[in-house]
Amino acid sequence: MVPGGPLTFTQILGTRILGVSKRFHFQNGVGIPPAAGLIELCRILLSERGEVSGIRIAQEILKGYRKLNPSGRDEFFDALATGFSPDPVRVSEASTRYLQEPSAVTLAELQRVTEPPRQELFRRLNMAPDGTQALVRMRQDLISTLSANSLRQAIDADLLHLFSSWFNRGFLTLQRIDWRTPATVLEKIIEYEAVHQIQGWRDLRRRLEADRRCYSFFHPALPDEPIIFLEVALERGISGRIQPLIDPDSPVRPPDIADTAVFYSITNCQRGLRNVPFGSFLIKQVVETLRTELPHLKTFVTLSPIPGFRAWLEEAEFPGEAAKAAKRLSESGWMNDARLEREMLALCAYYLTCVRKGPEPFDPVGRFHLRNGARVERLNWMADVSDTGSKTSATLMANYLYTENELEKNHERYMKDFRVNASREIRTLARRFSMPPK
Amino acid sequence: MVPGGPLTFTQILGTRILGVSKRFHFQNGVGIPPAAGLIELCRILLSERGEVSGIRIAQEILKGYRKLNPSGRDEFFDALATGFSPDPVRVSEASTRYLQEPSAVTLAELQRVTEPPRQELFRRLNMAPDGTQALVRMRQDLISTLSANSLRQAIDADLLHLFSSWFNRGFLTLQRIDWRTPATVLEKIIEYEAVHQIQGWRDLRRRLEADRRCYSFFHPALPDEPIIFLEVALERGISGRIQPLIDPDSPVRPPDIADTAVFYSITNCQRGLRNVPFGSFLIKQVVETLRTELPHLKTFVTLSPIPGFRAWLEEAEFPGEAAKAAKRLSESGWMNDARLEREMLALCAYYLTCVRKGPEPFDPVGRFHLRNGARVERLNWMADVSDTGSKTSATLMANYLYTENELEKNHERYMKDFRVNASREIRTLARRFSMPPK
Amino acid sequence: MVPGGPLTFTQILGTRILGVSKRFHFQNGVGIPPAAGLIELCRILLSERGEVSGIRIAQEILKGYRKLNPSGRDEFFDALATGFSPDPVRVSEASTRYLQEPSAVTLAELQRVTEPPRQELFRRLNMAPDGTQALVRMRQDLISTLSANSLRQAIDADLLHLFSSWFNRGFLTLQRIDWRTPATVLEKIIEYEAVHQIQGWRDLRRRLEADRRCYSFFHPALPDEPIIFLEVALERGISGRIQPLIDPDSPVRPPDIADTAVFYSITNCQRGLRNVPFGSFLIKQVVETLRTELPHLKTFVTLSPIPGFRAWLEEAEFPGEAAKAAKRLSESGWMNDARLEREMLALCAYYLTCVRKGPEPFDPVGRFHLRNGARVERLNWMADVSDTGSKTSATLMANYLYTENELEKNHERYMKDFRVNASREIRTLARRFSMPPK
Amino acid sequence: MVPGGPLTFTQILGTRILGVSKRFHFQNGVGIPPAAGLIELCRILLSERGEVSGIRIAQEILKGYRKLNPSGRDEFFDALATGFSPDPVRVSEASTRYLQEPSAVTLAELQRVTEPPRQELFRRLNMAPDGTQALVRMRQDLISTLSANSLRQAIDADLLHLFSSWFNRGFLTLQRIDWRTPATVLEKIIEYEAVHQIQGWRDLRRRLEADRRCYSFFHPALPDEPIIFLEVALERGISGRIQPLIDPDSPVRPPDIADTAVFYSITNCQRGLRNVPFGSFLIKQVVETLRTELPHLKTFVTLSPIPGFRAWLEEAEFPGEAAKAAKRLSESGWMNDARLEREMLALCAYYLTCVRKGPEPFDPVGRFHLRNGARVERLNWMADVSDTGSKTSATLMANYLYTENELEKNHERYMKDFRVNASREIRTLARRFSMPPK
Repeated sequence: MVPGGPLTFTQILGTRILGVSKRFHFQNGVGIPPAAGLIELCRILLSERGEVSGIRIAQEILKGYRKLNPSGRDEFFDALATGFSPDPVRVSEASTRYLQEPSAVTLAELQRVTEPPRQELFRRLNMAPDGTQALVRMRQDLISTLSANSLRQAIDADLLHLFSSWFNRGFLTLQRIDWRTPATVLEKIIEYEAVHQIQGWRDLRRRLEADRRCYSFFHPALPDEPIIFLEVALERGISGRIQPLIDPDSPVRPPDIADTAVFYSITNCQRGLRNVPFGSFLIKQVVETLRTELPHLKTFVTLSPIPGFRAWLEEAEFPGEAAKAAKRLSESGWMNDARLEREMLALCAYYLTCVRKGPEPFDPVGRFHLRNGARVERLNWMADVSDTGSKTSATLMANYLYTENELEKNHERYMKDFRVNASREIRTLARRFSMPPK
Repeated sequence: MVPGGPLTFTQILGTRILGVSKRFHFQNGVGIPPAAGLIELCRILLSERGEVSGIRIAQEILKGYRKLNPSGRDEFFDALATGFSPDPVRVSEASTRYLQEPSAVTLAELQRVTEPPRQELFRRLNMAPDGTQALVRMRQDLISTLSANSLRQAIDADLLHLFSSWFNRGFLTLQRIDWRTPATVLEKIIEYEAVHQIQGWRDLRRRLEADRRCYSFFHPALPDEPIIFLEVALERGISGRIQPLIDPDSPVRPPDIADTAVFYSITNCQRGLRNVPFGSFLIKQVVETLRTELPHLKTFVTLSPIPGFRAWLEEAEFPGEAAKAAKRLSESGWMNDARLEREMLALCAYYLTCVRKGPEPFDPVGRFHLRNGARVERLNWMADVSDTGSKTSATLMANYLYTENELEKNHERYMKDFRVNASREIRTLARRFSMPPK
Repeated sequence: MVPGGPLTFTQILGTRILGVSKRFHFQNGVGIPPAAGLIELCRILLSERGEVSGIRIAQEILKGYRKLNPSGRDEFFDALATGFSPDPVRVSEASTRYLQEPSAVTLAELQRVTEPPRQELFRRLNMAPDGTQALVRMRQDLISTLSANSLRQAIDADLLHLFSSWFNRGFLTLQRIDWRTPATVLEKIIEYEAVHQIQGWRDLRRRLEADRRCYSFFHPALPDEPIIFLEVALERGISGRIQPLIDPDSPVRPPDIADTAVFYSITNCQRGLRNVPFGSFLIKQVVETLRTELPHLKTFVTLSPIPGFRAWLEEAEFPGEAAKAAKRLSESGWMNDARLEREMLALCAYYLTCVRKGPEPFDPVGRFHLRNGARVERLNWMADVSDTGSKTSATLMANYLYTENELEKNHERYMKDFRVNASREIRTLARRFSMPPK
Repeated sequence: MVPGGPLTFTQILGTRILGVSKRFHFQNGVGIPPAAGLIELCRILLSERGEVSGIRIAQEILKGYRKLNPSGRDEFFDALATGFSPDPVRVSEASTRYLQEPSAVTLAELQRVTEPPRQELFRRLNMAPDGTQALVRMRQDLISTLSANSLRQAIDADLLHLFSSWFNRGFLTLQRIDWRTPATVLEKIIEYEAVHQIQGWRDLRRRLEADRRCYSFFHPALPDEPIIFLEVALERGISGRIQPLIDPDSPVRPPDIADTAVFYSITNCQRGLRNVPFGSFLIKQVVETLRTELPHLKTFVTLSPIPGFRAWLEEAEFPGEAAKAAKRLSESGWMNDARLEREMLALCAYYLTCVRKGPEPFDPVGRFHLRNGARVERLNWMADVSDTGSKTSATLMANYLYTENELEKNHERYMKDFRVNASREIRTLARRFSMPPK
């Protein structure tokens, strides 16, 4: 680096941006790590120089980033965490000025200097072709390293802030996924489905037949990437067992004889969009869409896992019958023990309605649906006899009922004191389990 | 309503959000202004209660806003300016804490409390159908009131901040406008064209023939609204006169005999997107697109107005010939005065290359193209003989040359000291005008 | 040009088909007319040689045809009429064989030799890009010369036979024309509208507002060419006057307050598709479409011209009042003569229901709608006060009522003896005119 | 049927066409077969009565046809073969008149009466929704019964005549099949591929990667049905072995390093379109498309099976070494016999270039490509080691070379005397096999 002054644009980039990676590659031979080169490009992108060639520089950075190995990424994230944060001196000065004289002007200055330059950096990276997708993947990489690097939380916060704005509900479109959907999207549905795995194309096809529905949110900047999708079975009555619903050999029935839409799976596809809320919007939009298309549908209900039930069972201590029942689960053959059903239903009803984590219900799936304004309607024994089902919830699954014109009221009540809205049946079951665990 | 406590959600909204406007209408009879009702809805939208019914409430607010008369809007903006700003107490506290102990935690807190709740409000309003468009129009309304209401600058800053993020180049698509474009878009092209007015459909059609091009940026949330568009003529050589280019009766020539793309008009369509930068991206993208489609094009050049020239002429004082020439313009018949050409070309070359407003060139169109890395290539007398042309620039127009692989270098040089990059011809002309005005 | 043998493919075409037109052009200098060249190419296209290069040769022929002047076209049509007809010798032989032994084999042979080679020629020309459109235009040219050239009827019959097959209802799609339609299509709607002229874009726009509908059939091979279109006004009650319907300044009303769809104009766009029937399909499809979209529509009715009325009036002889009334029309000021209305309504009711041309009703518009199964519902005085309206039908217009579940029965009855189905009102009017003209 | 006259439309159809199938179903109880009912509907569809309700009647017939069992279809086809043919009396009369006086008028009459009413019937059936597809399937059913029912040849001829007109090259569109294609189409590609079976979605995906291409013709009336498709591998040099090309685990290479397009499979999808020629058009269009997209491709060549080779080998008698070689194939382990290659190449070169069936080459694949103007370029031993490959062609495959500007000349020469165009290498090989089989 030339002594006596900052490098000019062309000194760093050569005459053509496209030559940059070659140059860095060359320098690597004498010891300059590629992540450092990318960080240098990030600085250029943020500078006035980045104005003319912004798109090309952004493209170059994202291409370079993709080639980094894990340690290169560590270096890159560390540099992002330290180097593109607000300047403490200026934040202190602006704070002092605001305290001396709180006004629109000093406030605006405080806002300006506290906004991390990283946010502008990410906005400029987004200008590259497929930049949005690249940033979503970058956050996915970042998230997997967060636990060991608390400093990087600030990068994550910046990306989350941007994504919450960019992936605003107003920019998402609901699309039906069916057998006319491009294979490139269907392939991802198979890959992403997290709740009840899809076993290849034949299985997928069954889930897209006339008595099934699948809807997904898409964002215009990621046209081939489902964001979050919901799988629905059109049934007569509320379904209490998942295996028949996802059996690829089950007979297809005409959708017009159905009176109930069963939401049996909802999958967030993009780990890089963690904590950007979509699920609640998706369910409500699908209810509206189905109601218009199939006016004879009367009931909208989920068939949901109860992921925390068995873990809770194992950690809690119970009196009498409940203790025996809980213990019985560790013995072989329990799935054939008919007496267990009664006890488990009561325990689970209690678990869903009374067990808390802080002020809110303990079960994460329950929290999601209750917050949406749904209510716990029914519990089903032998509802999920898969390995996962028996290990996490002792084969139990819950139906959460979505009654369109009660959602607001329910939500409001729930938000006041997190009291669980449950059907009479569930409440009776929960009361049967009279002695709560200590 | 109930004394002694805040209203509940259902008290304010009735059982259905859709009934709100009716209720407000009724209340109006007893004196509650509609803007106050909308502001109340805005508070609900921001509260936890807004989570379930957010889209409907947002829709209701935007519908109500559309019906406000100017004084209602004034009230609404005033309430937005005062009521949804950061809480000064919390900002002071967070500032103090940061000064006591500058850390990631205190910084994050400072960032959180300085972000105006208005931004979150606008993000939630955006969830309504066509919400983005409604917000762009709201800012357009707002802008027209800004000069008299400096407090509202903060609202404007918030909207600009959001729009700069939402209308990021990465979310825009370039589309060609031609005779296959839906009429609803073409109609807007006619309406918006600001530089050289389009006189109805016949005129428009000529501008979309085989030897013309028109490109526009679109945003997915405003599918029928051009954001900014560029009109191009495919010519042999650099055009020096605008009237033949926009003559609806000019003969159409095959595009493959052209060697020059003349950018003769660029129009920002959305006043609500003021200061969100698009123009520079658009020109560069169009150059790339044309280069691919028509590889025989050699020259990319503008034919641009010089809006500030004559105003400057009138205010400045000149010695000798220049003074006479400037004065001549106020007499009738000057357009036929052949001797004027020589003097005016020199004066204008001087104007474009040497006259400044602060550190930057005085002429706004010049500033835009020079900042993009273009150079002043040629000046043309009798280039725009329309009323506007003769009144603002004494019929002169400038060609700015876009040479793709010099843009970066030019831009960088320009940004260093705002020195104007001009062709030898222009520099010689400017030097002829040896004695600058005092 | 070897003496004593047929020319080879390459001798005629040179090494590249694309060079052909140049060659012919050159030869023209020494006297070979271009039509003869095209006919030679047609022969090659029909020969086995045309198999490989068919598309290019077809393209060349259609390009050459487009450049022919009227006398060139005459020559071309004459050669088509004489040179590409069935071989009389082979037809005679096949007829004889069939008469000797009528069988599947001799019949098939007879079918084969009676099919004009022209049909295969046209099928091969259709393979060129935009070939279908070119053939439709060729028939349009042809039709304008038919009256003077009865020999060319055979060409016309061949094209009509092909077009009836290619433009089968099963291949047409119904598309709504609205303000989102590409300008290139809208421009043609303006150009083609034959019943009530569209006065430019502003007029068109009014006809596409929320209380109007326009539907057109399209064929996939002519994506930008409307085939036939129908204009509809959504009204309260049956409209009896055309001018308010097509007034560009009339206020737009919400479509959901309408109970009646008034079909006020139907236009065949392609003269080259004469006698290929579309209109009946279009009206029925539009009725179905509107019924689905706007279920509150109760009545489907036309507002139709009565093109032959006044001509008939002038030629017929009437007794008493009727004669006076008919004569009155030749005097100025008749449009203000209130007594005329009563007489004219009766005369016109009689004209529509009783006057015949052969076995069928005299009025061509009437024939069309009655054949479709509609009935004459109402007659309206001062319904079309335009020049055309007063000159052809003395300002009268008719409403034909389309009652969906009576169309079949009505059609069947009509086809039996061509008796006109009319409302009681019309029948009463017609009876008032007791003495039919001699 | 009621005595005293033909049934009226409404007697047969009831008040609503849609009730017909129920009525027939009821009558079936008392013995009227459903095919007879359909035939009755066909007569109505052809009558004037069919004009108004044509689409509904057509729909009813096609729906009824779909439900017929094989014997019902037999009945239906027999009735079509006998009942909807030209009237022999009128054909005889028209023949006689033509012989008495051959003129345009008598010819037109002869054409009219010899056209089978079946053709008009099929044209009217085509008006039903998805009518074209239903007719294509009907012909597929018909074809499978033809060998035993020569009378039905006439139906087949009528359908072929219509389909040749409807599926004219000018109405087909070429579409690329890739991983963005809807699954419903891809599923059919897997199902239809006839030359080298596709083993499920993973296999298909490999065939659609960056170094592969797949193109298909589509017809607008069958939007989800590929008509004929061609699979292409982009390679360096001419491929001589099929297994590596279709290996789903083969590495994907960038398409821009390829210089050769290898057409390794062409599949006619619709048996109901038998004898409508598409293949030649498809190959030529794909050559043009690839040449534009990938200008660095120099060679266009097939890798084709030689389906008749081994059957011919077994039936022919050979002298000396050839006889031994032919015999060797019936022994186990022949695929490892290196000496066999030399002999087999010579025999196969002879087979492809000299063995005839009538005047044309014996091998059907060879006939197709030679007729297109390609030439036999190379023979490859161990080119297809699959079961089919070794059983039908002793592992040999041929490369046919498509040299764009020689196709016309080659085709013309071939059509003159069916002489096989072969490379020097092939001709030398064929000559090595000096003693042809007796």
